[in-house]
Amino acid sequence: MTKRFSKSLLMLLVASTVSATAQDKRRDDLKKPLVLASQGSFFVGGESKALPAAPPTAGRGGGRGGFGAGNITINQMYVQYQKPVDSDQHVPVVMVHGCCLSSKTWETTPDGRMGWNEYFVRKGHAVYLADQSSRARSGFDGSLFNAVRDGEVPPNQLPNVLMATHEAAWTIFRFGPEYKKPFPDGQFPVEAVDELYKQMIPDLNSTLPNPNPTWKNMAAIAAQLKGAILMGHSESGFFPEQAALIDASGIRGMISIEMPCATMNAQQISTLAKTPTLIMFGDHLGDTQGGGLSWQASYEGCEKFVQQVKDAGGDATMMHLPKLGLRGNSHMLMQDKNNLEIADLILGWISDHVEAKKNVRKR
Amino acid sequence: MTKRFSKSLLMLLVASTVSATAQDKRRDDLKKPLVLASQGSFFVGGESKALPAAPPTAGRGGGRGGFGAGNITINQMYVQYQKPVDSDQHVPVVMVHGCCLSSKTWETTPDGRMGWNEYFVRKGHAVYLADQSSRARSGFDGSLFNAVRDGEVPPNQLPNVLMATHEAAWTIFRFGPEYKKPFPDGQFPVEAVDELYKQMIPDLNSTLPNPNPTWKNMAAIAAQLKGAILMGHSESGFFPEQAALIDASGIRGMISIEMPCATMNAQQISTLAKTPTLIMFGDHLGDTQGGGLSWQASYEGCEKFVQQVKDAGGDATMMHLPKLGLRGNSHMLMQDKNNLEIADLILGWISDHVEAKKNVRKR
Repeated sequence: MTKRFSKSLLMLLVASTVSATAQDKRRDDLKKPLVLASQGSFFVGGESKALPAAPPTAGRGGGRGGFGAGNITINQMYVQYQKPVDSDQHVPVVMVHGCCLSSKTWETTPDGRMGWNEYFVRKGHAVYLADQSSRARSGFDGSLFNAVRDGEVPPNQLPNVLMATHEAAWTIFRFGPEYKKPFPDGQFPVEAVDELYKQMIPDLNSTLPNPNPTWKNMAAIAAQLKGAILMGHSESGFFPEQAALIDASGIRGMISIEMPCATMNAQQISTLAKTPTLIMFGDHLGDTQGGGLSWQASYEGCEKFVQQVKDAGGDATMMHLPKLGLRGNSHMLMQDKNNLEIADLILGWISDHVEAKKNVRKR
Repeated sequence: MTKRFSKSLLMLLVASTVSATAQDKRRDDLKKPLVLASQGSFFVGGESKALPAAPPTAGRGGGRGGFGAGNITINQMYVQYQKPVDSDQHVPVVMVHGCCLSSKTWETTPDGRMGWNEYFVRKGHAVYLADQSSRARSGFDGSLFNAVRDGEVPPNQLPNVLMATHEAAWTIFRFGPEYKKPFPDGQFPVEAVDELYKQMIPDLNSTLPNPNPTWKNMAAIAAQLKGAILMGHSESGFFPEQAALIDASGIRGMISIEMPCATMNAQQISTLAKTPTLIMFGDHLGDTQGGGLSWQASYEGCEKFVQQVKDAGGDATMMHLPKLGLRGNSHMLMQDKNNLEIADLILGWISDHVEAKKNVRKR
């Protein structure tokens, strides 16, 4: 008995050592120096807008916001990129964040682990992080705020400054059924949720014209790169599709994570069916309430969309993570504890559905 | 004659080939893959603020900015970093941008050359780019805008959304004596000025409490890194000094580029004199008008400050670039055509005034 027990224990130890070794290897691989062929940042889009001088009643020396009349640039989109060596072996990926967030979404996770931006680079993809037009380093058109301040426009015309509260985020992002109560199997690192709250910044999409210039800018960067995969999340989840409806020429693949799928007519479906599409949802879709959003309804709407694209001869894939054996993933799945496992699913889809279809175009 | 001419021509060719080779080598060095020990992003500072529900008259279902009552995080500072291998050989550098700009300031220049962020990393320094609190990826407190929108606060209480116009920037940044007219010897790549205009984003420092939380956050990151050089520019030019007055324990050096130097009392000067200080100004200080700023007066005020620090036994250096033989530099000297030459001056100062003084602390 003692001997058998010892043998079993030994085998268990061997097995766990092997597993630990595999995990250690992966962890060690990610600790190796990161080698970049190049990196940098630039803008896509943007146009000039003329601002009049402030009215004399503003009592600020005629300056508009402190400066005189003149032009500002609006609707531009800031993009930060890194290219690994031999990046021409893989299709570039453009990542666009969701509501009340910035490109920080894709970087170091709230609990300090590697984000998708670096992981995709380490897997051979050039990665482009875009701050949505009107957010973060892309700036926004603040002229209406000043016009109200100067008494030219009534205050009820002020754009809504959308700020997600901690309380709203907890349930909308599906960390748990109610504020501060996590799901027992939840993958989000709730012990570091305060670091996520710091990422949550005012959303000024209410200041944008219609259609949203980010759509055009996303189509433009794909064309500029002569081929790229567009990835959106939540508020921007369906932006790859909106971009493809404007100009699909540079879009090699569309990855849409956790959002409602817009209702499309037959012609739009036909256009979208020309580009491989991946849609992804996490777990607990029906288990939280908040913000008037129903993730379960969004998921079901996107299942219909996937079927429509397939019926039109397109290549559309729905990855519902619990169906693939991954439980407990939140809305912020790129920051969840198993975020690199999910990234591997996406990398596999890119390999099978985008890169296997034709030779990767040289850039 | 023909023979002598040929010989001269040959010598000229040899000389220019040597020079070209040296330039080629530098250019080739910068094209080598960039090897990073690590990179990532995080936040410094930040606190919770409770938002009440919107009044019923707002007619938006009781939500404040679309969500219910709850807490948001404000005054945090977003920081993005890269560490080269062997970064413990040099002191980390924290770079903070100026008015109406973001950390884009330090990245790829408007005409597509390497920015100081990557150059300093290639020279062995860990580099930390911070978006000022209330700017870009750091977010801002938008609650007063919504309170005005909801009729709770009069419109003349709206914070000023400071937007620099193209016209104002041209002269304030000293690209030339008047809009679209460059200085003949100007170093700013004016052919790409539209790309600079895209970097210019609304400045919401008017929403901040007093003292500016960026000062505290800059002191905090230096302490957290157990030693760092703080670099500020323009609006943030004197922030390293303001940070040192709060907590100088982590600040190994202060680099202040192109700003007015605040008037300090004897005790403040005595505190600041404990940390090596570099102040830098470009060219054409008295040759433009605009925005109520006098660069010449700023320069003269900073010369006085340098003398005060020296009189208190401190190590303060004024680099006025024209006096060092560098002509035509603009206010955006980190983006000027000779930006890496200027970076070398700063790296030399760090080596002589910060790193030579004591062993670099291991991180």
